[in-house]
Amino acid sequence: MTTTREIHLVRRPDGMPRPDDFAVVEAPLREPGEGEMTVDNLVMSVDPYMRPRFSGDQALNEALIGGGLGRVSISNRPEFPVGAIVRHGAGMRERFVTDGRGVSLLNPDPGLPLTVYLHALGGTGITAYGGLLEIGRLKEGEQVFVSTAAGAVGSVVAQIAKIKGCRVVGSTGSDDKVRWLLEEAGLDAAINYKTQPLRAALAEAMPSGIDVYFENVGGAHLDAALTLMKVGGRIPVCGMISTYNGGGDPVRGLSNIIYRRVTLQGFVASDFPHLNAQFLSDMTSWLKAGKIKYQETVLEGFERAPEGLIGLFEGRNSGKMLIRVAD
Amino acid sequence: MTTTREIHLVRRPDGMPRPDDFAVVEAPLREPGEGEMTVDNLVMSVDPYMRPRFSGDQALNEALIGGGLGRVSISNRPEFPVGAIVRHGAGMRERFVTDGRGVSLLNPDPGLPLTVYLHALGGTGITAYGGLLEIGRLKEGEQVFVSTAAGAVGSVVAQIAKIKGCRVVGSTGSDDKVRWLLEEAGLDAAINYKTQPLRAALAEAMPSGIDVYFENVGGAHLDAALTLMKVGGRIPVCGMISTYNGGGDPVRGLSNIIYRRVTLQGFVASDFPHLNAQFLSDMTSWLKAGKIKYQETVLEGFERAPEGLIGLFEGRNSGKMLIRVAD
Repeated sequence: MTTTREIHLVRRPDGMPRPDDFAVVEAPLREPGEGEMTVDNLVMSVDPYMRPRFSGDQALNEALIGGGLGRVSISNRPEFPVGAIVRHGAGMRERFVTDGRGVSLLNPDPGLPLTVYLHALGGTGITAYGGLLEIGRLKEGEQVFVSTAAGAVGSVVAQIAKIKGCRVVGSTGSDDKVRWLLEEAGLDAAINYKTQPLRAALAEAMPSGIDVYFENVGGAHLDAALTLMKVGGRIPVCGMISTYNGGGDPVRGLSNIIYRRVTLQGFVASDFPHLNAQFLSDMTSWLKAGKIKYQETVLEGFERAPEGLIGLFEGRNSGKMLIRVAD
Repeated sequence: MTTTREIHLVRRPDGMPRPDDFAVVEAPLREPGEGEMTVDNLVMSVDPYMRPRFSGDQALNEALIGGGLGRVSISNRPEFPVGAIVRHGAGMRERFVTDGRGVSLLNPDPGLPLTVYLHALGGTGITAYGGLLEIGRLKEGEQVFVSTAAGAVGSVVAQIAKIKGCRVVGSTGSDDKVRWLLEEAGLDAAINYKTQPLRAALAEAMPSGIDVYFENVGGAHLDAALTLMKVGGRIPVCGMISTYNGGGDPVRGLSNIIYRRVTLQGFVASDFPHLNAQFLSDMTSWLKAGKIKYQETVLEGFERAPEGLIGLFEGRNSGKMLIRVAD
């Protein structure tokens, strides 16, 4: 009989998750029935959205929710041949049997590491691409400000804007990230909002104003950007992390949008299915040409998923946090 | 020699303007030279924007700035024949000589009072029309919330939305205005935000949510609306009067726009020249059919302009405040 392993939540974390909140559990795995298949997990994505689930709808003593990439090892579904690479949301399981719901075929480019399909060529990539180009209606040569510019979405936004011939300023929370933005990602200026006065630093970095502010933060970041928006400026709103859970600074300067005819517009990753083909084509060629840089922290071994989760919440990752399960 | 009269500011008001801050001054008026004409003022518009000017760029001992409608009485400009009705921004002068700059020909509908060209068929009308239909992208049958719904802009917005088959809820600041909105303007519900808890009253009045919130107020009004916006909702931002001068409540609930894909967009009256012909045609027929109701407070006599200004700032007007200079 085949077996699998699962990462279980065995106790709801009190604040920061600890190793004994999780368990690696071995379980039998049945053979796939008619219309089913077995998928071996290859890489698992570790994401910030998981933390609130641990205190909410994540069941105890079941596999953690989550997404990843896998390979079909047994198949009773003709459209998923053995050996096919798939994208799935089947959770933290070493292998699993599925009828194909929530699983999609991936045709990965052999010239790229598979892991990029979990960030630059995945959900964070199309969020950046659709948010900047469609919602932000970016035009060549514009002045662009990106908050959390070293993050998974922000770093792609900033580099797409550079590819499109824009002048790009980013904000981030450490001097190491400022260096990465300037030296690797090629931004024109970067602000450490934890050590610099944001409003003054932004005004100095963007003396001719802002055409597009890619919003991930809200609060004081938004107020600082609002004072600098140009007439006809756009603010695609991807997130307002500073204001979640009722915290953060409120916004006082919204009336700036009237005479400047500024547009704020909210969106989510799933708003851009019509852009997907063009996104995959553009992003694949940009990655292969080295025009989009990224950072990954990859832990080797299924059983290290709890370590990856804890590391993510403690900020020990650089860029996307991933668990490699098999090659 | 012809004479004219002008309303002068003779002292900058300390708080609320008083009668002796103004003077009615008689002055000689020269004959129009080559390429010039004389215009007799017929109706003058009295507007809230004038107050800050009295403490700012309004010169002392000169005619007050302002707009109105006049009739050409002497003309050396063929495109402005004697008897033509014109729209002008020539200030509070009984008659004046002009080379035509800032003056435009008006072709008023004989079935309508001339005064409507200073509100429903003027700047406030096209602000409402363009803001609701173009910026708000209003669709038939939608749920619409209008703040300051009894005001010059808001009352037109609310009634256009009713004409377009929408369900319309308005907020206003007195029970008299609530009655006017329900009984005259035909709104589906109206909230007195000074006596009712706005957020709860709005949630009760709009149980299925808001498609379009026409924003004139900001602060607590915006926060209340944000909690009720439907997916794909639009917030055309015409004004945020509660937040001017740094006062009013800050906004805390902006992150509601993300998952609901809400758009906020600022605009001003002059953004819609491409809509002007359609606006004049639609609004003329709506007014003649009695589908757009309005309120006016008309003081008779040029010399009563100071009384009109003071009355406006003391809130003694119902609807648009006007001074009739001549018939």
